[in-house]
Amino acid sequence: MYYVGIDLGGTNIAAGLVDDNGNILQKDSLPTLADRGYKAIVEDMSVLCEKLTSAQGISMKQVKSIGIGSPGLCDAKNGVVIFAANLFFENVPVRDELSRYYDMPIYLENDATCAIAGEIVSGAAQGCKDAIIITLGTGVGSGIIINGKIFTGAFSGGGEIGHIVIEVGGEMCTCGQPGCFEAYASASALIRDAKLTAVRNPKTKILTLADNDINKINAKIVFDANYLGDADAEKLVDRYIDYLAIGLTNVVNIFQPEIIVVGGGISREGEKLLVPLRKRIHPFGTKKLITKIATSELGNDAGIVGSALVFKMQV
Amino acid sequence: MYYVGIDLGGTNIAAGLVDDNGNILQKDSLPTLADRGYKAIVEDMSVLCEKLTSAQGISMKQVKSIGIGSPGLCDAKNGVVIFAANLFFENVPVRDELSRYYDMPIYLENDATCAIAGEIVSGAAQGCKDAIIITLGTGVGSGIIINGKIFTGAFSGGGEIGHIVIEVGGEMCTCGQPGCFEAYASASALIRDAKLTAVRNPKTKILTLADNDINKINAKIVFDANYLGDADAEKLVDRYIDYLAIGLTNVVNIFQPEIIVVGGGISREGEKLLVPLRKRIHPFGTKKLITKIATSELGNDAGIVGSALVFKMQV
Repeated sequence: MYYVGIDLGGTNIAAGLVDDNGNILQKDSLPTLADRGYKAIVEDMSVLCEKLTSAQGISMKQVKSIGIGSPGLCDAKNGVVIFAANLFFENVPVRDELSRYYDMPIYLENDATCAIAGEIVSGAAQGCKDAIIITLGTGVGSGIIINGKIFTGAFSGGGEIGHIVIEVGGEMCTCGQPGCFEAYASASALIRDAKLTAVRNPKTKILTLADNDINKINAKIVFDANYLGDADAEKLVDRYIDYLAIGLTNVVNIFQPEIIVVGGGISREGEKLLVPLRKRIHPFGTKKLITKIATSELGNDAGIVGSALVFKMQV
Repeated sequence: MYYVGIDLGGTNIAAGLVDDNGNILQKDSLPTLADRGYKAIVEDMSVLCEKLTSAQGISMKQVKSIGIGSPGLCDAKNGVVIFAANLFFENVPVRDELSRYYDMPIYLENDATCAIAGEIVSGAAQGCKDAIIITLGTGVGSGIIINGKIFTGAFSGGGEIGHIVIEVGGEMCTCGQPGCFEAYASASALIRDAKLTAVRNPKTKILTLADNDINKINAKIVFDANYLGDADAEKLVDRYIDYLAIGLTNVVNIFQPEIIVVGGGISREGEKLLVPLRKRIHPFGTKKLITKIATSELGNDAGIVGSALVFKMQV
């Protein structure tokens, strides 16, 4: 059986032809160009569908369903993106629009929800029924599967782990609330703090690695400077892992899933990040960390595999 | 149909004979006397069962099942209390022990889980499928029902809303971790802060209302002094509601349930507590508070009704 998975991002529309086991048979992408409006974006989704199938010598008539993973708040039931800041989407009927091109089941879910679905199908969370992904990127995204089913709260607005307050009156979050987990554990938060450090100490290796251009500082550079023994970077990474551990402690105490998959750019640090992280997570009760902590295995492909097959986990 | 519900507390064992609609037909209790060990406590549960049924002119043979609500960490599947500090219980096989007296289905669940089950059957959350209770007492307890089913995580150790860190490096919690929600929103936290205030300002009305005995300060006194216009008490209550609102914001952003039921002693403040509380909850995304915030309707009876009928919500 064939399925199409479309990972709609702020920069690219990535799509893939996927089989029942989560293998990507064909992959392609087009730039999103978000400011052109949703109709042109959805039209390009159909262009991708045609390219994927013709490259495999089949037609869209042989495809069973299309799944779309979108950033932001999604109304899966009605196939509407309620709000997605970086797409300039507000109440956009993505499913209905794509239905103009194809008469087949079309599903819409949040991109992080799709990512954890992908990891369950063929990645780090394979076979798990209770799994959560935390993506560490521009923001902190989260996708939650409980007992094999997608969890987004009673009205599709829950599951926002990035917006759990972990420090009352703390750093301002992009959501307008101070102290959210995202304001400490996103790559953006680490970059913000590294820039503050670079202003205070222009001799830090962080700045050297960024060609002495404060605007070129990224999360990888901070980790690299840390591995090179730079004292400022060590302090930043240490503090970053502290906060990340607090957030994951909360996830464990709330959900106690079988696995937490860490995704997003920062997850590429792998075990160098996970080893100290696991030690700093403090589960309530038995105190023993039963939940497995792992990094994403599928990376960017998780979104394609997951959006194609996430319908199997819908409530 | 008849069911027995047993609410096992640190002070009393309360029990009731309950019908399918959650009506308590007969109620009774005995002191727990926790230090005598679990066998004597379970024996007294059977004494209560006999008293309840004979008072109604029936026998235990006409009872369909017995449910027990226990504080602490419960292994519902095996009927074992894994850990309950105020009962001195560690891996206590409560179900097997009560099975020595009765050959019928016996269920065990956490007491807060039972309380929300009771509120769903015949209290503030009647008819809800996604409901959470937060009990504000010695600690902050939580019971979670998602899609009509009990939620305690993949290994029975989740759902610990009281132990979500809301202030990194903050007030020490009884669980050994600093900054937990419980360390700010429990009645004990309010009493702790009121005592600190009373030491600093012995003229506060809080102390007057406590017969000038700092050890007599309780949560109700702090609220009463606030209503009387005492500046110290106003500050304490204001801060308390601030922290409570942060915790409930987290609950809304994570679970977005249909209703959050506020229980425990402090919930008796009713709308005087809830009106400012609702205003300070900041949901992510749509920003609109869809989740209903209400106080417990059944009070202490929630535990009896809920333990009797909670089996209907088991996964």
